[in-house]
Amino acid sequence: MPNPKIKINTGISPFPMPVVIVGAIVEGKPNFMTVAWFNRLNSRPNLWGMVIGEKQYTLEGIQEAREFSMNIPNVDLVVKTDYAGIVSGRKEDKADHFEVFFGESKNAPMIKECPVTAECKVYDIVELPGSKFVIGEIIHAYSEEIYMTDGVTDSKKIRPFVFTAPEHHYRELGEKIGTAFADGKALLRDE
Amino acid sequence: MPNPKIKINTGISPFPMPVVIVGAIVEGKPNFMTVAWFNRLNSRPNLWGMVIGEKQYTLEGIQEAREFSMNIPNVDLVVKTDYAGIVSGRKEDKADHFEVFFGESKNAPMIKECPVTAECKVYDIVELPGSKFVIGEIIHAYSEEIYMTDGVTDSKKIRPFVFTAPEHHYRELGEKIGTAFADGKALLRDE
Repeated sequence: MPNPKIKINTGISPFPMPVVIVGAIVEGKPNFMTVAWFNRLNSRPNLWGMVIGEKQYTLEGIQEAREFSMNIPNVDLVVKTDYAGIVSGRKEDKADHFEVFFGESKNAPMIKECPVTAECKVYDIVELPGSKFVIGEIIHAYSEEIYMTDGVTDSKKIRPFVFTAPEHHYRELGEKIGTAFADGKALLRDE
Repeated sequence: MPNPKIKINTGISPFPMPVVIVGAIVEGKPNFMTVAWFNRLNSRPNLWGMVIGEKQYTLEGIQEAREFSMNIPNVDLVVKTDYAGIVSGRKEDKADHFEVFFGESKNAPMIKECPVTAECKVYDIVELPGSKFVIGEIIHAYSEEIYMTDGVTDSKKIRPFVFTAPEHHYRELGEKIGTAFADGKALLRDE
């Protein structure tokens, strides 16, 4: 078929992107920054990768300690999450705005207000043009009973939000519209 | 403060994950597979990275041609998107279920039903345990007027969906709850 579409600006981003607040100890103090360019990379070990600009303050701490935290914010934390993505830890003590706690590592400050948090060790750092792709292994993960059902995390209770571009909107999640690894079976060829 | 949380299984995934259908020419024919472990990596060039299992049929085509497509599905395509993630192109001709078109490259089959599509060139392939992290550069991007407002893509018109784990649900996007790079300014220290 002929191309039914029109060319658009190539600067597109995924529709939509998840949001995480990364924590590290920088110059002896907890610091946090918001990242939308991240995802999971591997099952076992559980690796996550995230993009951090090469001049970011947080990157200094991660590269030094080789440890950091990942904190999943929810809809109650939109303003603080946005704040942590706007200003550099070089200018303001962002940790002031969060209740900070530690698990097993002294280099992975975590945010109490975030429904799910994790301690990570650096697995690898890949060079990108202008940034680093930090690959971390989830060593310990944490949540609270109020965010869980039958012993596992429940997205309906966590109430995470996403980031859309180019609008730069934060949006909550809507209704369930399908079940993965199940709905598609209807199209399988009969054997 | 003492650790206010409890340890949970470390096999967590981001809350939530975006969804994309990757297209490639494998053994001379268009093939498609669904990926949830992907995101953007860089601005200029616009690089996206995605995880593909090392035995996936689609990977063979990507590694041979060094070109592929990214296709953003919407809520009308949940069943087909799930199907493309369940069965291997070695077993079924998945392209049968989509209206396929080409842009500039003969190696990047795209899906008409997807509101946004893109042609990509391989930028790098990073080895992971059991999979490859394929980094592609967006060379051309496509959409249609019905998915755009004032000349740019509009997520409200595109109606993308996300994947949540461990529930394995697909969910549509909900209401706007904030504006990025704006709401957080309320917390900036006065200069």
